[in-house]
Amino acid sequence: MTRHPLCLTMGEPAGIGAEIAAKAWHRLRAAGPVFFFIGDPVSVQDAPVALIETPEQAAEAFSQGLPVLPLSLPVVPQPGRPNPANAAAVIAAIETAVRLCLDGRASGVVTNPIQKSVLTGAGFRHPGHTEFLGELAGRGVPPVMLLACPGLRVVPVTVHAALADAIRSLTTDLIIEHGRIVADALRQDFGIARPRIVVAGLNPHAGEAGTMGREDIEIVAPAIAALREAGIDARGPLPADTLFTPRARAAYDCALCMYHDQALIPIKTLDMDGGVNVTLGLRIVRTSPDHGTALDIAGSGQADPGSLIAALHLAADIATSRSRDHRP
Amino acid sequence: MTRHPLCLTMGEPAGIGAEIAAKAWHRLRAAGPVFFFIGDPVSVQDAPVALIETPEQAAEAFSQGLPVLPLSLPVVPQPGRPNPANAAAVIAAIETAVRLCLDGRASGVVTNPIQKSVLTGAGFRHPGHTEFLGELAGRGVPPVMLLACPGLRVVPVTVHAALADAIRSLTTDLIIEHGRIVADALRQDFGIARPRIVVAGLNPHAGEAGTMGREDIEIVAPAIAALREAGIDARGPLPADTLFTPRARAAYDCALCMYHDQALIPIKTLDMDGGVNVTLGLRIVRTSPDHGTALDIAGSGQADPGSLIAALHLAADIATSRSRDHRP
Repeated sequence: MTRHPLCLTMGEPAGIGAEIAAKAWHRLRAAGPVFFFIGDPVSVQDAPVALIETPEQAAEAFSQGLPVLPLSLPVVPQPGRPNPANAAAVIAAIETAVRLCLDGRASGVVTNPIQKSVLTGAGFRHPGHTEFLGELAGRGVPPVMLLACPGLRVVPVTVHAALADAIRSLTTDLIIEHGRIVADALRQDFGIARPRIVVAGLNPHAGEAGTMGREDIEIVAPAIAALREAGIDARGPLPADTLFTPRARAAYDCALCMYHDQALIPIKTLDMDGGVNVTLGLRIVRTSPDHGTALDIAGSGQADPGSLIAALHLAADIATSRSRDHRP
Repeated sequence: MTRHPLCLTMGEPAGIGAEIAAKAWHRLRAAGPVFFFIGDPVSVQDAPVALIETPEQAAEAFSQGLPVLPLSLPVVPQPGRPNPANAAAVIAAIETAVRLCLDGRASGVVTNPIQKSVLTGAGFRHPGHTEFLGELAGRGVPPVMLLACPGLRVVPVTVHAALADAIRSLTTDLIIEHGRIVADALRQDFGIARPRIVVAGLNPHAGEAGTMGREDIEIVAPAIAALREAGIDARGPLPADTLFTPRARAAYDCALCMYHDQALIPIKTLDMDGGVNVTLGLRIVRTSPDHGTALDIAGSGQADPGSLIAALHLAADIATSRSRDHRP
């Protein structure tokens, strides 16, 4: 256990954030990890609220109710109907959470999903949550998205771009940079002494010796060679279609994928509800559930807290691993 | 049951074809489906051989041993070491199997995996098995590859091409053509009265309303509209990453995917050993196991016949469905 609580942001107030926060508290109240919610107490319906004024009060409050560090919403949220008037508060919750982590008063940030279109309408200029966090707590490297579920970790090297653009933007340097960040994170955050990384080929059958595209030979393979030269156990490029069978998965700690769907299809196919999104390359610990705001079921009580609970556990594990790593 | 046996080709003689044929016979000898092997009897080590001279003898021979319609190999095969001198016989086995089907003497062809590089060296000019079968028994439409495992069927609209080329070759007409062939096959071959087809978007999040690529709006969506106008229950373009969760899969009969790995990653992630490859758009029934020649384990007795057995069952089911469909 870390000494500090985790901080959970409200996310989109018209979504399922407060509901899954309350459900997660019910499941974790006995054994932790301890977390507090930054948001409007009125939005919490499904658990007793323990109002706190500082993160330090969360641990003691946690057995009584969901600790809430209050951040008032201008407009009472209507489930399923996001209101741009609340956008500034959604953003402020993220900023506050990051600041508390940077100040060493929270051990990590777990973010509830946001509705990007609503925030964009209110002036949010970032492509997404992850990029915003990169600006608030970056380390001079691009934030890297790792997705984890029991038995599989994947990292897409290119993320939110049209597939044709993703191919064009793929470079040896980009793959090397991701490989290094992932290797560091597997050691520091996941406690894996000698991480094994596999790299998926871009093309079918990893290009089949160049007969189906040259990128795997000209762009991907040199990156793997460079990573190996840097002492990182990286293998590939391997055909992506056979990379996620149980036998294949047993032989590596993380698969580096060349584009969004190559990484996200296998992880969501295997474990839709327990997947966790981790941002690597930040000065803080950050995880989030691997689903959206679920506006269609908001307010119905049907939201599944599984992914959020997994995200809280993983954030706590990473924070513990980092503090152990930094122990004098 | 169909009246005619299935015909199983030898595939690469240095691979696992004869071994899994023998293992499949042991598992199917009591209840069928009845099949016979076209190949060299000397290559069959793991089951009694029942030599036959005509397909019609297979049914009676089947309880005694693996029925083999002999086709001598010039060179005795060495496990794991393909010999180009045997390439012509490998091709002849496929041609014979197709002819027996076209003549109505076999109910379908199940093909063991071939080693394309060896055949190419011996003058085989086709990109693969499927294209060769298209030439031997096509219907004037391109052969379409459908992969099936318990709970999922997928069809890649583009197949063996570099990913950048696959994107460039994707057209509305190509998607429509595949959608029509798939809808016909689901009805005729799989006995699904009103097939439900989903279409995966090319780009992440199916392009997110055009913000990540225009192809899903300009190429994919019009194809879906045309299929719907033709009375086919097609939906999409849908984000590919969430298309293969158990809940999503329950709502469709086949997913039309835009490229090789988008289709093959989910099916191989879910079921590596029981996947079956079916060729649609031929005048004959054709299935094959969803794995390669496995030269690395050939001769060791470790080969798993699961996918071949699934391929034999599915070929028999399709043949039965087609004969029912054509009943006067």
